[in-house]
Parts: sequence; C-alpha cells; structure tokens
Amino acid sequence: MTAPDVKVIFFDVFGTVTDWRSSLQRLLAEYGAREGIDADWPGFLTAWKAGYRPAMDAVISGERPYFNLDEMYLERMNQVIGDFGLEGLTEAQKQEILHLWLKIDPWPDAVEGLTRLARKYTLVTLSNGSFAWLTAIAKHGRLPFDAILTAENAQVYKPHPRAYLTAIELMGMKATPENCMLTACHNYDLAAARSHGMKTAFLPRKEYGPDQEADQAAESDWEVVAKDLIGVAEAMGC
Amino acid sequence: MTAPDVKVIFFDVFGTVTDWRSSLQRLLAEYGAREGIDADWPGFLTAWKAGYRPAMDAVISGERPYFNLDEMYLERMNQVIGDFGLEGLTEAQKQEILHLWLKIDPWPDAVEGLTRLARKYTLVTLSNGSFAWLTAIAKHGRLPFDAILTAENAQVYKPHPRAYLTAIELMGMKATPENCMLTACHNYDLAAARSHGMKTAFLPRKEYGPDQEADQAAESDWEVVAKDLIGVAEAMGC
Repeated sequence: MTAPDVKVIFFDVFGTVTDWRSSLQRLLAEYGAREGIDADWPGFLTAWKAGYRPAMDAVISGERPYFNLDEMYLERMNQVIGDFGLEGLTEAQKQEILHLWLKIDPWPDAVEGLTRLARKYTLVTLSNGSFAWLTAIAKHGRLPFDAILTAENAQVYKPHPRAYLTAIELMGMKATPENCMLTACHNYDLAAARSHGMKTAFLPRKEYGPDQEADQAAESDWEVVAKDLIGVAEAMGC
Repeated sequence: MTAPDVKVIFFDVFGTVTDWRSSLQRLLAEYGAREGIDADWPGFLTAWKAGYRPAMDAVISGERPYFNLDEMYLERMNQVIGDFGLEGLTEAQKQEILHLWLKIDPWPDAVEGLTRLARKYTLVTLSNGSFAWLTAIAKHGRLPFDAILTAENAQVYKPHPRAYLTAIELMGMKATPENCMLTACHNYDLAAARSHGMKTAFLPRKEYGPDQEADQAAESDWEVVAKDLIGVAEAMGC
C-alpha cells in the first residue's frame, strides 16, 4: 500500500486509542475512596465489561432492537452490583459510576500518533460507543479527530456490515472504499472492514491487562502492522 | 439564561460560521483564470445557490426522497450552466467546481470565537450540508468542533423537526434539550430549534453581500444576540 491511496482513517476507540481498563480501575478506586465504598472494584469492572460482547451480539443478530452503549452499561451494572455488595448504590451513584467512562484516558502514544496522522488524513472514530460518549471521550483526551462516527449512526454494532457501510457512505467514499482505512487492535474488526473494501491497520494492545493473549499478533496480512499509533503514523508517512 | 444551563452548542455553518459567498466568488474566479474560462462567475454562483432552498423544501415536504447537498449542487449546476455559457464543462471540471465548496473559509471571528467557546462547551455542527463536506470544511478552516452532525444524520433538512431532534438525541440530551443551544444567523433556524426546547443564539451575517436585508436583526427574544462569534463567546462567559 502507498499512503496516497488512503484519504480517511477510521479508528476503533475502546482499546485501540484509549486505555479504558487502567483508567476505570483508577477512576473506580478513586470513586470508592471518595464515597467511602469499599468493594472489589477491579472485579466489578471485569464483570461489568463482560456484558459488552453478548449485548452487542444480541443487537447484531436481531434478538434485541438497537440500544446504545450507555443503556447497555447501566443495564449490566444493575445485573452485577449484587455480586460485589454494591446493591445499595443510589440511582445518582449509578449515574456517576456510569459516567466514569467519559473520563477514560488515551494510551500514551495516542495524541502524538493522531496529531501526526491528522496532518495528511481525515481522522474519524468508528466505535461501538454512543455518539455522545465518543464525543466526550475525544474531548477529554484532546484527541484530534475530525469527526465522530459510531455504531449509533448506523443503529447496529460492529461487526455488522451496516456499521462499516454507513461510515464509508457518510464520508462520501461509497464508490472508493479502498480510500478508507480502519485502525484497530481487534483482528475481527479489521476482517470485517476488509470485507467491505477498506484498508486495515493493526496494532496490539494489552487492554485486558498484562496477561492478555488474544489479539497480540496480526491474524492476516493487514496493510499496516505497527506497535502503536506512532508506528501507524510512521507507516503512513507522517 | 445563565451559561451553566448550556452544555452543548450547535452551530449552523453556511453563513453563520463560514463566509461561503466571498470564498466561492474568489475560488470560482481563480478557477476560471486557471482554466482559461471567462464567465460571469458571480452570476453563476447566485444562480447555483438559488437552487438550495427549493431543493431542501422538496425533501422536507416529502416531494422528493432525501438526497444530500453534494448531489443537490451537482444537479443544480447542470440546470444553470447553460445560462452562463458553461455547458461545455467536462464531468471532471464540474467535480472540481463542486468541490470548491470544501475550501470555503470561516468568517474572521470564527476560529477565535469557537476556540474560546470550546473551553467550556461541547461544540457540534448542525448544518444542511453533507457529513463528508462538513468534516472537510471544518478541517480546512481549522474549526475546533468536537463533533460533526448534519441533516444527513437525520436524512432530512432543517427546519424539519427530525433534523433537530436527531442531533439532540445523539448528544444524549433528549431529556434535557434546554441544555442545548443553536447558534445561527437565520431566524427561521432558531425558531425551529426553540420549538424543540433548545436555547438560541443569533448573530447577523451579510452572507449574501452588503445589500442583504434579511436576518440582520433578531426577530424574537433569542437568549443570546451578538454581533459575531466572539460576541457569542463573551455572552456565554468565555
């Protein structure tokens, strides 16, 4: 691939651009200390996050109508708080905990990598998060995205085809999807993007912690394979 | 109104943030000189732009299915070029002229006004332009919007209710539209926004040239009335 082929670079956000797990471990611990609530917050986070893929899959399969990630995480919180002695949380406390997701930080290389890429390319999110959350997360992290697009624009989650096709069409690239690239730390996401004609960039992340084994290597001949977002920028001539 | 009420500020873009007419007069003259095409370019621009409101209204009334502004301006170009001796333009030349819209400049006060507002508020476009065009225009003008939303996300044009309601909902403000504000230089746009519970900010613009008489004064008690976007920033405590 030569860089001039690509005009628009899409980015997965949770895991690829932001370190949601370390951020939330810290934010939940701070919240617990501030509120005087002693709990296994890391365990709660793991259980909370575990609701993500099943809920997305239920929407993709048509088993449930589209509901956004904000609604999903609130529903899932209510399902798991009893296991962590947190059933006494008030609705206001639940909302506060839910909104800790808006304060997750980028990985250390993200701002530099994106800033360099933004000089030559149009940078757009393509996340399963809600539009409002992604806008807030990008603003919090001072991430230089040119536009926010999420599953909510397509009303279905990745890897459903419509999530990618809506993004390609809104960027005016329906006739030339090969001028789009998806950057992600999840091989399944890149496989779906490629099936719709997009180019692909992979970088490994330890988003689930130091023991994570999945998605540590490229599982196909993605056009770009780098160690982080600065590496993607370098591979793209920035 | 006190500023803390507002969290998200939406902006009309053509006229309110960007000086499309002066920009296109210059860009078309430059294009003609470069290509050696002598024509009444200001007259062409006026005729070209005159297709805008009727086309939007045809979509709003349901007379035509949604088609985006890129498609509208290409269709309208083909309708009027014969009147300006431009019927010999090739398809490539038409595309080049069409894409001059992506290089329109902000008004002189826009970057400072938006930069100040962005420190306290989330800034989002709400334009009848296409998503791809708005993204390009914001990037060209280095406009510090946090997200791009347009009529294309709702698949209908302002002032149809769905254009505003989709934006409010995507920003997570369905229950509290009063925390949203629309900034525009068109009274009709603000009237529609207010009818959906949004706050409103008006500023006059001479987008149609020095003789423009419409929309030079507030036609209702909009919460903010300012002379330009720096004035809006000042009124909003930035």
